Amino acid sequence: MTDVTPTPSSNRRVVLESRPAALPGPETVSLRSEPLGPVAQGGVLVRNRLLSLDPTIRTWMDEGKNYMPPIAVGDVVRALGIGEVVASRSADFTVGDTVMGIVGVQEYVERDGASAADPSDPTYLVKLDPTASSPEAALSTFGVTGGMTAYFGLLDIGVPKPGETVVVSAAAGSVGSIVGQIAKIKGCRVVGVAGGAEKCRYVVDELGFDACVDHHADDLRRGLLSACPDGIDVYFDNVGGETLDVVLEQINLKARIVLCGAISQYNRSPMRGPENYFSLFVNRARMEGVLCLDYAERFPEAVAEMAGWLQDGSLKPARVQTEQGLDQFLPAFLRLFSGEHDGKLLLAV
Amino acid sequence: MTDVTPTPSSNRRVVLESRPAALPGPETVSLRSEPLGPVAQGGVLVRNRLLSLDPTIRTWMDEGKNYMPPIAVGDVVRALGIGEVVASRSADFTVGDTVMGIVGVQEYVERDGASAADPSDPTYLVKLDPTASSPEAALSTFGVTGGMTAYFGLLDIGVPKPGETVVVSAAAGSVGSIVGQIAKIKGCRVVGVAGGAEKCRYVVDELGFDACVDHHADDLRRGLLSACPDGIDVYFDNVGGETLDVVLEQINLKARIVLCGAISQYNRSPMRGPENYFSLFVNRARMEGVLCLDYAERFPEAVAEMAGWLQDGSLKPARVQTEQGLDQFLPAFLRLFSGEHDGKLLLAV
Repeated sequence: MTDVTPTPSSNRRVVLESRPAALPGPETVSLRSEPLGPVAQGGVLVRNRLLSLDPTIRTWMDEGKNYMPPIAVGDVVRALGIGEVVASRSADFTVGDTVMGIVGVQEYVERDGASAADPSDPTYLVKLDPTASSPEAALSTFGVTGGMTAYFGLLDIGVPKPGETVVVSAAAGSVGSIVGQIAKIKGCRVVGVAGGAEKCRYVVDELGFDACVDHHADDLRRGLLSACPDGIDVYFDNVGGETLDVVLEQINLKARIVLCGAISQYNRSPMRGPENYFSLFVNRARMEGVLCLDYAERFPEAVAEMAGWLQDGSLKPARVQTEQGLDQFLPAFLRLFSGEHDGKLLLAV
Repeated sequence: MTDVTPTPSSNRRVVLESRPAALPGPETVSLRSEPLGPVAQGGVLVRNRLLSLDPTIRTWMDEGKNYMPPIAVGDVVRALGIGEVVASRSADFTVGDTVMGIVGVQEYVERDGASAADPSDPTYLVKLDPTASSPEAALSTFGVTGGMTAYFGLLDIGVPKPGETVVVSAAAGSVGSIVGQIAKIKGCRVVGVAGGAEKCRYVVDELGFDACVDHHADDLRRGLLSACPDGIDVYFDNVGGETLDVVLEQINLKARIVLCGAISQYNRSPMRGPENYFSLFVNRARMEGVLCLDYAERFPEAVAEMAGWLQDGSLKPARVQTEQGLDQFLPAFLRLFSGEHDGKLLLAV
């Protein structure tokens, strides 16, 4: 309701200082302490606890059309996260509520007025039932950059049929690891592409993928040819670049490419266009973008089905790696691009 | 039935001498005279009259996976065409029959045995009712590289809705000119991209397109921005290259890109990949290949509907330009890539 408790007077926040031309560096962001005013009528103040470090944040640092507006230079770096309401003059929130939203890379997020229930709105903030899942799971297995993207991208855009071959890149990540497991549940042959022996071992031995090509060690083309003797029917693309081109060489008639990410290209401008795109014509195949935020109304359906799979053991939760502290934002964020992390990367505030 | 008439003893044919690395030249093809034996039991001999010069022939000259096998070096250049049966030992054909098929760039085509009714089979040969349409119309307005590709590509893959903006490249060509007219019939705003003032005038003044951007004279980006104030919902792509990239910048949410051709790239290896392909993600849009041969069973449906549109005046037939003689194959074929032709390019044998 309209609880008001004493509020802190300052807020540490990671601010976008300049638009990076390539990989972000120390000139891209800074940690600033800024004054925090009293909560406005209708507003709410949230103490952030756990932030989701997502590759898509890098695309928000660029100008140009995107599915959300660019982060303005001087604004806090946008991020999804979970926190706790510490002051409220809003009818929608009570002190002590656990909330999830686009809270930014900062200690506190203050909303002046109404918050959006739509996760594609930059003022997204909703109450979260803390007994339903851990904050880690809410941001990974059941999260936007995780299970929700995997579920709707694979099932609605990829539409895998039993017996088909599904390839997923960034296979050990929070999206890829769920994509591959759902494809296994649907009766597909599942082949991952990941960087490093440990990630490949993880998706094959622990998650049950049929094979995994280590793009650090293996020849990607030969690796995929050998792992996909019947060609590729569905490709869930998280990386773009060379992997996309190699996959395009090996797709089957009427293949579906789910365009979810292009992490190999986010620090390049222009991006590398897929030279083999005309394979879509040759194979009468389809490449289509998926943004799980479009499916927000169907999240409960996905959560319910995935909870069932977790319970019956056919799905394992995404791995989570949590870094500590706002001052670790930049090095942690850069790990997304070097691949030096295991599964969903989170930042505890 | 099994008519046999005296058959000629030699056949002039355009043979693939070497695979072109870029634009075909005199070293790519030669005109050879080769002996013609008697027609085999079950076989048929056709005197070719009119050949369809299609950009896709260039892709068959390359090695690698395609929707049909490559033309073997030393074989006749593959082409669709129309001719007349001059000898038959087949139960399916009678001397005097008009036939359409993959007859090759040559005076005569001899089939040893059964011919395929499937146009995606290199032995495709079917009887044609010469009273139903002229040979020119059968190879253009109602042809594979013409109305059939336009009809199924636009309606089945592009799925245009009334009021949407449809852009088509190679707009004055045998496919593009029909695509734009069908899109107008479906209530869309239609914008062409073509090379040269005359082609633009033709599609706007004679075919009723709303606008046309002349990529020889205009800035493509600004031209499309100005002609498509509400963005682009459907793009029917015949050309690839820069045009595809510029369109990708201007597509709307849930746009559909019909991948039909990439004539700007057929003489390049590798092709230019679309640097802006990630716009498919940003806009949750789709790019999908169409090959009208997949719709062969539904050709009668398309022909019937298009015949109705021709009759009520809402559709004008494709323009046709006919070159004369097998010795003109190479210069005529090269006009496809320079754009120096008007509408469907045919070669009379």
